[in-house]
Amino acid sequence: MTIVTANLAISLDGFTAGPDQSLEHPFGTGCKEALTSWMFETDQPGREADAQLRAALHENTGAHIMGRNMFSPGRGEWDESWTGWWGPEPPYHAPVFVLTHHERAPLEMAGGTTFHFVTGGFETALEQAGKAAGGKNIEIAGGAATVRQYLAAGLLDELVLHLVPAVLGAGERLWDDLAGLALTPTEVISSPTVTHLRYRTVRPS
Amino acid sequence: MTIVTANLAISLDGFTAGPDQSLEHPFGTGCKEALTSWMFETDQPGREADAQLRAALHENTGAHIMGRNMFSPGRGEWDESWTGWWGPEPPYHAPVFVLTHHERAPLEMAGGTTFHFVTGGFETALEQAGKAAGGKNIEIAGGAATVRQYLAAGLLDELVLHLVPAVLGAGERLWDDLAGLALTPTEVISSPTVTHLRYRTVRPS
Repeated sequence: MTIVTANLAISLDGFTAGPDQSLEHPFGTGCKEALTSWMFETDQPGREADAQLRAALHENTGAHIMGRNMFSPGRGEWDESWTGWWGPEPPYHAPVFVLTHHERAPLEMAGGTTFHFVTGGFETALEQAGKAAGGKNIEIAGGAATVRQYLAAGLLDELVLHLVPAVLGAGERLWDDLAGLALTPTEVISSPTVTHLRYRTVRPS
Repeated sequence: MTIVTANLAISLDGFTAGPDQSLEHPFGTGCKEALTSWMFETDQPGREADAQLRAALHENTGAHIMGRNMFSPGRGEWDESWTGWWGPEPPYHAPVFVLTHHERAPLEMAGGTTFHFVTGGFETALEQAGKAAGGKNIEIAGGAATVRQYLAAGLLDELVLHLVPAVLGAGERLWDDLAGLALTPTEVISSPTVTHLRYRTVRPS
């Protein structure tokens, strides 16, 4: 069964990115390291839980969806020389559907990643991703605004939070405008660095 | 060794109480149940982790500290007919130091709880609680503003959060004005209702 899932690093105070996101600082200023450092050096002693979790996150993912801001620092019409943050071989190895208001031809990268640019809205992107996923899961890759859009619409089945034990004080809040949302905890994986919290959402039938 | 500890229920979006706290709604409106329900019906199947954690929370506590707002809905001069929210036998069974700007004689209740009213500030209260604790731990009972005060001053050793899987959208935020704070996760206890997260703080030597 295909599930729609997302995973995000989040600070204790609910920020998934810092303020002032830009080309130089895609996670914003002041907190890239705080939010992303759990993903690195997972071969070190004591990091086994993080390594296992990280390896498992995408093992059954057939398609990804991301917001324009996660694909590109630019806005408006496309600069077609921009092919994403990830170099010639992005880490997705599957179709990636990018939400945008501006049409662009599909962009095929090395390693099985093809970016498809979807101008029909987030529900259309989900339909297209569902067809492309071939029965595997669909990951809403981010950013927070895109995850929030699927959460608010009741279209997300599962949310995995990597709870970073730090207070950032500013940035983009995942939970804005989601008052009343209730989740069900289904799994917790602790590590000395972050706590991985898996929740099931209640999806309208 | 005496440690200074606190435990708080907190929503996914960082609220430890709702808006509009009052005599009728000491946790504010709209979220008392969301934040406190994990503490009840812990004799039901599947609630063993919550029951054990709740029983262990105070087993080594020798003194408590709380803000005036946690003791009383009133402000200003004391209404001495008010003896707390908890009836004749409060659940503390130990000395409780209440931070206030208004002097009041100690108030001895049934079951070993005596409320001491401290007008000398939060650091004075901690000194007095340390003497009263007899080598056991000191609990900062709340509310969030009082816990935040000790956290900000580097006087809290341990923080236990009961992470409620709900988004409240409004109320009192624990993390306000604590940007830059970093904690170390030391224990995680999961349950189907809430996730209990124990953190160590870094206390200036």
